[in-house]
Parts: sequence; structure tokens; C-alpha cells
Amino acid sequence: MKILVPIDGSQYSLEALNMAKSIAEKFSGELMVVNIQRRLVSRPKSTEFDVSEFIEDNPDILRERGERVLKKGLEALKGSSLKVETCILMGDPADQILECAKESKADMIVMGSLGLTGITRFLMGSVSTKVVNHADIPVMVVKKPG
Amino acid sequence: MKILVPIDGSQYSLEALNMAKSIAEKFSGELMVVNIQRRLVSRPKSTEFDVSEFIEDNPDILRERGERVLKKGLEALKGSSLKVETCILMGDPADQILECAKESKADMIVMGSLGLTGITRFLMGSVSTKVVNHADIPVMVVKKPG
Repeated sequence: MKILVPIDGSQYSLEALNMAKSIAEKFSGELMVVNIQRRLVSRPKSTEFDVSEFIEDNPDILRERGERVLKKGLEALKGSSLKVETCILMGDPADQILECAKESKADMIVMGSLGLTGITRFLMGSVSTKVVNHADIPVMVVKKPG
Repeated sequence: MKILVPIDGSQYSLEALNMAKSIAEKFSGELMVVNIQRRLVSRPKSTEFDVSEFIEDNPDILRERGERVLKKGLEALKGSSLKVETCILMGDPADQILECAKESKADMIVMGSLGLTGITRFLMGSVSTKVVNHADIPVMVVKKPG
């Protein structure tokens, strides 16, 4: 059983990783841990909010950010003998998760829910809702931080 | 680990039950299998569609329907040594699932997604989306029929 775990470094996503680890261990499965960097093609219209954090489009900076998040994920898996692949993806998080699930032939997606809060969440929409609605494999959404 | 599994008798919900069974067996857990009968307090305004199936409010008929669904669920679990509780609930499915999860101190909810189709689904909204958005325990939504 291959479990896809998108993480963004938030407490929720690390809790999801922990849950995925438990399931993979019980089912002799493997993990595919991915981080998605939102790369926007066009800048959003100026608003009252500072969205500069989300309009970074330098691939080197994005990759570095992704590596930091994945490092955090691998640290959380330290000591486990599970087979783990990692990957940094760029684009719309939900679209990338869905595409990656298909390409990697994942059997399940385990993801956190509230990585984003407040206005950011409002602007970005709920990634987990979109994934649940469009995936054709089981999706587990982990809500409780560890 | 106590897993709450709401079933409506559809292929998706029985697939969810099957997934919940696998997880419960691996984690030495137990199942709480529930069926929710939609009991509407007020009849919807008349429409072009026949919604009579969904405005039944005779508790005896609703209970009988619930028992038929749960029987189907128990048959799917035949041969398993898991501890299984069953329950028929009445009201709004998402609200009832969320309340039952709290009251029964469930650790996880595993549910199917597409028990309803077409106009019914449109009229009723997506139960799984509401549960995912409001539960404070992990929710697994199973999309693929067995």
C-alpha cells in the first residue's frame, strides 16, 4: 500500500504524517511524502492584504522552502524502517496532489486540514476539500494536531 | 481505536466499511456502524422532482429501513472477530455523524462519499464534505466502490 502524504510543515500536516506512518507500518506499506510550493503564474490584483509571501516565483527559493519542509517530515519519520520517497511539486496544491496520486499510483492520501489559517485559508480555499471531492482513492483528512 | 462507520447501504458505504474493518483489525480496534435516516421536520416546498422518498417521517418505517441497511453491513463483516456496535440515528446525516462521533468517543470516522447521486445529491448536499469540515478527529472518505 502506497500512501501519499502532502505536508506543508504545519502541525496538522505532521500529525497526518504520523497517522500515515502508523497505517503504513501496520499494512507493510510505503510513504510518498510531498511538499507543494504554490507557484502563481500571474500576480493577484493588489489587495489590502500582504500576499507577497504567496507570489514568490523564483524556483530556487521555492525549492529551498520545499526542502526545508521535507526535512522536517523526514525528521518526524526518524527511526522508522518504512520505505519513504520525497518530492517537491510546484503549482496549485490540490491539483498537484491529485496528479501526483495518479502518477505514483498511490492507494491512499493522508493529509492535514488546517495548515492555513484566517485570511490565507480564505484566499487559498480549502485544499483538503478539493482533494476529497476529486480523488478516486480513499482520502484521510487529519484534523487534530498532535 | 474506535472507528465510526456511517453506512447507507450503497456500494461506496460498504467499501468504506470494508476499509474500516481492515484498519480496525490491524489496530486491534472496534467498529461502530451507524445508519442515519433523514427525518425532515418540515416538508420541502413542492418541486418538479419526486422527493417523496425523502420525506418519510414515520419512525417505524424509518427504523425498519435502518435495520435493513445495518443488516447488510453486518453481513459484510461476517466471519470477522471484531467488536461491532450498531446504531440507527435520525435527522440530518452530517449532524448526526458528528454528534455520534463525540458521544461515542470515536477516534476516527471512515465513510463513503457518493451514496447519493444526481439530483438527490444536489438536493441533500455532500454529507462527507460537511463531516470533513467539522469533525475534530481524522475522517477517511472512501471514493472507489469495491
